[in-house]
Amino acid sequence: MKLLIGNKCYSSWSLRAWLIMRAKGIGFTEKLVPLDEPGFKATIFADAPGSGGTVPTLVDGDVAVWETLAIVEYLHETHPQAGIWPGDKAARAHARAASSEMHAGFTALRSACPMNLGKRFSARDRGPAVASDVERLTALWRQARERFGAAGPFLYGEFSAADAMYAPVVTRLDTYGIAVDAVAQAYMKAVLALPAYREWLAAALAEPWIVAQDEVDEPALVDLRRS
Amino acid sequence: MKLLIGNKCYSSWSLRAWLIMRAKGIGFTEKLVPLDEPGFKATIFADAPGSGGTVPTLVDGDVAVWETLAIVEYLHETHPQAGIWPGDKAARAHARAASSEMHAGFTALRSACPMNLGKRFSARDRGPAVASDVERLTALWRQARERFGAAGPFLYGEFSAADAMYAPVVTRLDTYGIAVDAVAQAYMKAVLALPAYREWLAAALAEPWIVAQDEVDEPALVDLRRS
Repeated sequence: MKLLIGNKCYSSWSLRAWLIMRAKGIGFTEKLVPLDEPGFKATIFADAPGSGGTVPTLVDGDVAVWETLAIVEYLHETHPQAGIWPGDKAARAHARAASSEMHAGFTALRSACPMNLGKRFSARDRGPAVASDVERLTALWRQARERFGAAGPFLYGEFSAADAMYAPVVTRLDTYGIAVDAVAQAYMKAVLALPAYREWLAAALAEPWIVAQDEVDEPALVDLRRS
Repeated sequence: MKLLIGNKCYSSWSLRAWLIMRAKGIGFTEKLVPLDEPGFKATIFADAPGSGGTVPTLVDGDVAVWETLAIVEYLHETHPQAGIWPGDKAARAHARAASSEMHAGFTALRSACPMNLGKRFSARDRGPAVASDVERLTALWRQARERFGAAGPFLYGEFSAADAMYAPVVTRLDTYGIAVDAVAQAYMKAVLALPAYREWLAAALAEPWIVAQDEVDEPALVDLRRS
């Protein structure tokens, strides 16, 4: 299988698909298609004809799967023993609902705090819409941890696709210095310490910058790529 | 199983979940929670504690599933013979990707043309963002029909969850008089003729109106509920 991804520093959707595959030991080759490359879609279509022309896209023989949730379900079908989703039926339903909320939601947080793994920003008030997003997502995490999380430090115990879906949000809360409760802090610590995430982060920090992407951000408190 | 839904005239997400269940003959009771009711979320939580407090929500014993895509996957697991998704692996991956695109996408069309089954509007130019959405979704439909649609009139031949996901868009293209190609027209005709959809529509037209909801709309060319 081949996974087409964008820049590791900025592409939050690419991180999700890559992370679940790497964390679950599913073998794949990766191809990084820079987000600012002219002919970006044409490059995707060369490997994945009939796809959406977006990252991430998974290519498995003549099957091209775009859209992160569709990739996750494809992996769940092709690797039923990998633990992509929680094994318990109620936990799995909860995990899918939480992942679907992530897919279309938390737009205020995502818009105000774009994922940028190369910088650490000053903590400050980011407005009521962002606060509301943070309140909802931490409530969801707390609920998952309390009801289904006994077997490990992740939302449903063992690492699952739901954690991969929320990993970019974990990085945003971290790099933008957003205050969260102790349950969320402990959960974030587990995600940020995951070996697969550390591998992605190291590659992200070694990447060439995209200046246009960095310019939309606010001034960094610490530039991790210069330190 | 019990399905919590909003008003049939306006709740596009409720239509999606209801339609796949009814079209596939999955038995359920329904409870309509009016969208403008004070204490809307409290009413949902009374039936579905631990859910997102949104419609649709499916309650199956002590499992509460919110988010339409999560409901669809739950039904696919609990009713593996119902044909919720296409049987062919490549078609199923395509259908899931198309459904995921629908879940978070086509926001210009959805915002400019809110689902309102009780009215028919004058055709007019709705701007480049809506045109771009219509171009993408009809291209996706055409691709699905050409590659996977030989066995029937729907996107993947037989009616599937992908058709349920796109049904509210079909009604928008229809009631707002948006021009589409012949392939899309034939597909829309099949969806609008589906007995399960006709049943939903009849109930929608018999519902009390929500004046505040109707006021955000433009003047109707034909008011179907008065005819």
